[in-house]
Amino acid sequence: MKSDATEKQISHVVDTLKTLGFGTHLSQGVERTVIGAIGDKAVLQKGQIEMLEGVSEIVPIRKPYKLVSREFHHADTVVEISPTVRIGGSHPVVVMAGPCAVENEAMIIDIAKAVKKAGATVLRGGAYKPRTSPYSFQGLGETGLKYLAAARAETGLPIATEVMDTRDVALVAEYADVIQIGARNMQNFNLLKEVGKTRKAVLLKRGLCATIEELLMAAEYIISEGNSNIILCERGIRTMETATRNTLDLSAVPVIKQLSHLPILVDPSHGTGKASLVSPMALAAVACGTHGLMIEVHPTPETAASDGPQSLTYAAFEEMMKDMRVIEEVVRNGRK
Amino acid sequence: MKSDATEKQISHVVDTLKTLGFGTHLSQGVERTVIGAIGDKAVLQKGQIEMLEGVSEIVPIRKPYKLVSREFHHADTVVEISPTVRIGGSHPVVVMAGPCAVENEAMIIDIAKAVKKAGATVLRGGAYKPRTSPYSFQGLGETGLKYLAAARAETGLPIATEVMDTRDVALVAEYADVIQIGARNMQNFNLLKEVGKTRKAVLLKRGLCATIEELLMAAEYIISEGNSNIILCERGIRTMETATRNTLDLSAVPVIKQLSHLPILVDPSHGTGKASLVSPMALAAVACGTHGLMIEVHPTPETAASDGPQSLTYAAFEEMMKDMRVIEEVVRNGRK
Amino acid sequence: MKSDATEKQISHVVDTLKTLGFGTHLSQGVERTVIGAIGDKAVLQKGQIEMLEGVSEIVPIRKPYKLVSREFHHADTVVEISPTVRIGGSHPVVVMAGPCAVENEAMIIDIAKAVKKAGATVLRGGAYKPRTSPYSFQGLGETGLKYLAAARAETGLPIATEVMDTRDVALVAEYADVIQIGARNMQNFNLLKEVGKTRKAVLLKRGLCATIEELLMAAEYIISEGNSNIILCERGIRTMETATRNTLDLSAVPVIKQLSHLPILVDPSHGTGKASLVSPMALAAVACGTHGLMIEVHPTPETAASDGPQSLTYAAFEEMMKDMRVIEEVVRNGRK
Amino acid sequence: MKSDATEKQISHVVDTLKTLGFGTHLSQGVERTVIGAIGDKAVLQKGQIEMLEGVSEIVPIRKPYKLVSREFHHADTVVEISPTVRIGGSHPVVVMAGPCAVENEAMIIDIAKAVKKAGATVLRGGAYKPRTSPYSFQGLGETGLKYLAAARAETGLPIATEVMDTRDVALVAEYADVIQIGARNMQNFNLLKEVGKTRKAVLLKRGLCATIEELLMAAEYIISEGNSNIILCERGIRTMETATRNTLDLSAVPVIKQLSHLPILVDPSHGTGKASLVSPMALAAVACGTHGLMIEVHPTPETAASDGPQSLTYAAFEEMMKDMRVIEEVVRNGRK
Repeated sequence: MKSDATEKQISHVVDTLKTLGFGTHLSQGVERTVIGAIGDKAVLQKGQIEMLEGVSEIVPIRKPYKLVSREFHHADTVVEISPTVRIGGSHPVVVMAGPCAVENEAMIIDIAKAVKKAGATVLRGGAYKPRTSPYSFQGLGETGLKYLAAARAETGLPIATEVMDTRDVALVAEYADVIQIGARNMQNFNLLKEVGKTRKAVLLKRGLCATIEELLMAAEYIISEGNSNIILCERGIRTMETATRNTLDLSAVPVIKQLSHLPILVDPSHGTGKASLVSPMALAAVACGTHGLMIEVHPTPETAASDGPQSLTYAAFEEMMKDMRVIEEVVRNGRK
Repeated sequence: MKSDATEKQISHVVDTLKTLGFGTHLSQGVERTVIGAIGDKAVLQKGQIEMLEGVSEIVPIRKPYKLVSREFHHADTVVEISPTVRIGGSHPVVVMAGPCAVENEAMIIDIAKAVKKAGATVLRGGAYKPRTSPYSFQGLGETGLKYLAAARAETGLPIATEVMDTRDVALVAEYADVIQIGARNMQNFNLLKEVGKTRKAVLLKRGLCATIEELLMAAEYIISEGNSNIILCERGIRTMETATRNTLDLSAVPVIKQLSHLPILVDPSHGTGKASLVSPMALAAVACGTHGLMIEVHPTPETAASDGPQSLTYAAFEEMMKDMRVIEEVVRNGRK
Repeated sequence: MKSDATEKQISHVVDTLKTLGFGTHLSQGVERTVIGAIGDKAVLQKGQIEMLEGVSEIVPIRKPYKLVSREFHHADTVVEISPTVRIGGSHPVVVMAGPCAVENEAMIIDIAKAVKKAGATVLRGGAYKPRTSPYSFQGLGETGLKYLAAARAETGLPIATEVMDTRDVALVAEYADVIQIGARNMQNFNLLKEVGKTRKAVLLKRGLCATIEELLMAAEYIISEGNSNIILCERGIRTMETATRNTLDLSAVPVIKQLSHLPILVDPSHGTGKASLVSPMALAAVACGTHGLMIEVHPTPETAASDGPQSLTYAAFEEMMKDMRVIEEVVRNGRK
Repeated sequence: MKSDATEKQISHVVDTLKTLGFGTHLSQGVERTVIGAIGDKAVLQKGQIEMLEGVSEIVPIRKPYKLVSREFHHADTVVEISPTVRIGGSHPVVVMAGPCAVENEAMIIDIAKAVKKAGATVLRGGAYKPRTSPYSFQGLGETGLKYLAAARAETGLPIATEVMDTRDVALVAEYADVIQIGARNMQNFNLLKEVGKTRKAVLLKRGLCATIEELLMAAEYIISEGNSNIILCERGIRTMETATRNTLDLSAVPVIKQLSHLPILVDPSHGTGKASLVSPMALAAVACGTHGLMIEVHPTPETAASDGPQSLTYAAFEEMMKDMRVIEEVVRNGRK
């Protein structure tokens, strides 16, 4: 729309598009309003929309994803995780840290204090755990959510935790500040739609063999339900390499920043599967421009209920954070 | 258990195992009963179980999957799809055929008649469709299920259709003879548990980058809930090859037959993504021992709502069926 | 060219193309002669070639490979391995069998007799072995070639053996009936050019992560040097699956038959890495239309110098051959 | 050997090992001498070596690679590229820059001056080019080498260039300061042996689908011929991702530094295939500890004979170098 388009003109365009069978999505910026029209351009007669009052120009978007694309929304999206924690754009690198799985209340509070002291601003921890084996620890469920809430009450850290089932979305949304969709559920489309109906921040992890385009299409499922509070997450893909658990695809960071306006976060813990590789890859992620990091931290990795080998001790995490902030400052000053 | 073990001895062993914290799974064969004990062997004192009456021997199973393994259950499992259609063991190759998505009632009935005439014994068709894009046709939902039921009523063919959401399992189970878990949901563990609670036949498709071991672990989720009516499905994996939509891994057929007692079915339509490759790969699948085939058939592939390029016309399907039965007979006669 | 074009007209077109800077390649069929012109079409003025006498039509080929394409040469190429052994088109499935590495003279002669008795028509055996480790057995070199020649003298079987170094091509060509280019050398372009200068049959194995298009481009290197006696070989690609050594991509058989006129052969020994999978996959390969098979056979696989786990015993090979011939007959009769 | 072992004692141990059939490899450090014994430990009688004079202890190395392993040679290897340029250990990040292919003398001299001015210390450029198509530009051959030598004479920059054929090793070694083995030839074992016989620095690029272990095994081929001047190179692997040409596996940097003493270099130009991604990934590589970078630079990328889309302009390269040095300084100061 033109920068001086009126509310009435905007509504009229939206209504016209709806009548023609298009889905619409309104994006109101400081300077102008953009109306996303989702549907088949072929139904339009030439000039049919251009001639409406207030319309500035029509930009056809050919990519399979639309609302998440940089073409549709040029400025970086900043997602508000809590009143004091924001991710995206030029905000400081957000570090979400904590155990793979919540094991008990005392421990999660202890970890929350430790990671907060080291500079993390979000506490992560799994209450519902997707495990390859039905005989592995499946998480504490709602009890785990309560422990997380207790840790939040104690430290003030917002909490990020995974949801695996459409039936649990309402419950998880009640507790969580960031709802996580795990890699195995990246194309669980009903789950994506369900979190899309909330207004919570959603952390969407890239599937084990998903392309970046598929990750963006999955985000499109969430945003098309009206929730644009999406944080994309690179957490390693499956390749023929066996020295690492997955292959962390850091080039996804600059690629996604070109293609989409959504913030991107890197998880070097799952991305490498080895504690000794977490810190170098976290530094590399910051050097190539990530907006956030997710790091598994455990007081005693050797006894962790899950993912011990890739968890950092408190001391290792603290050291990583110091090095990371130095790199971040250099990158920030270099940003044009 | 010994072949002459009594019911009472069996119950006693089961009760003892439960007291010790083991999950148990009973498998009663013609000759003897096998009790699967799921848990940590380390809690057992030496001889604690062996000394119980009726116990023949203890066979530790080290593979991460247990109940689906050939070691646990030696004989081929035969899954009953309908009173007249069985898959597995030495039963004839079961062909499930039909459109990718149910589009309308007349069409699904027409297709059902056509594939039945050509020799298919199960009708496939999607009512809930997992689509990469939120803007693609998502299926007709319950209406689609009703159309499938109408086609069954008309032709007598049992029906196979996909479920994508834990909340829909009960509904789909009401209509379907075979509940399909799609490749993208192979590790949607809650969905696996939910279909595991039904007693319907479940067609479990291999994930796009899942290993055979992970496929068997996913089946273990279903069987550990008590449902052993599982049909595994090879439908192509993602590789660097771009000439085909996926790379159909036919070696999965003999590998799975070595590792598991469950029947295996091959889907060359998704496995190749090209109609011209479906017939050669279907013949190859039968030659290496598949128990079943799933084939996409559409009267006019060029107008199909989804997956047109990989769908066979009625004529092509009929011809494929003839060639397939000849190969099947050769393989069957060669079977020892 | 028109079907009645004269030799003189053909030469004139070839000369004209050469003057214009094109490479040329003559393909003389029963009905007509095709002149392949390799270069940039943009240098041609409109009608410049069409107006020459004897020219029928110009067919632009856009694929990156030209001379190996089905578009360029429509009829199946039949490669003559020896006066009595031909592969391609409707010739019987050619089976090349033998040990991974030639170990000593007595053994290779013994194996040659055994595989011949079972119906193999080519003896395979490595004298130069590409091994991942410099400390593994590297093959007997020229001595191995001499042993192979002795086995040929004894049995009449033509021999197939690998060359790894441009400096060895002349020597290997002196002994071998089929020169093999291994998977690791598929893009050793100088080696491809060098075997392209001979007129020997060349068996070109697909690289571990090569696409079918790259395999055809590698064949284009050989044919562009004037040698069209090329047999393509599918031997498994590297994927995330670990149950098999490689993933045998059988869909490559019908794909390659669509794209190229060259014969295709399948190696289920390397393709699976497990003896128990070789026979099922060989039958599957024949069912989907392969022109040939390459099978590792060893009298005592457990003592083989290399690749023991994937080698068939004499008895297993004999049985596989019987089953294979039955499938072959069915497929042959079905061929239209 | 003990730190006070004499030359005579060392020779005696070496001779004894040779008599027993072992290959040996001497590594003389400042503090002590290590003798690598390559062969089967089983032939040794208990204590047979330990009892020799001067022997300190025996460390069995089970990894398939030995001489390249960190276990065998603990300290970082520093490779001397020229009297003033060294790579490895705590030496500054070495940047090798230049065009994909040498196109003409004036241009390579111009590029050499430009990259030197920006801080590169090695000039790269291909005279022999491995191209997927036989119809693509194959490089200028020896003429290209002469142009590179002219550029070295003009600027003093040592030169790195690829060799593809065993027959060309002597010639390339005459001109080059660093002999490059390309990704497609990583398992061209004869070529590896041939460059192993020279004493030139060898840049060994990781194959498109090679594991890190296979890369180290390939290096073992070179070092086992006596040449330990090896620089390993991560240049991206082939995955299912299509947004980038390859997937740059930066975790290979810390992994290789744990497993091997050899220096590691990262090529973000081939690793991403897109100029816009080169700088972020170069910074990331430095942040995670690379010893060197290889960057494609071209005055007019849009007219480059090969790899234009991934080449940096002079201006972009200069800017990248500035950012890189800032990150390097931070990392260096952080090194313990």
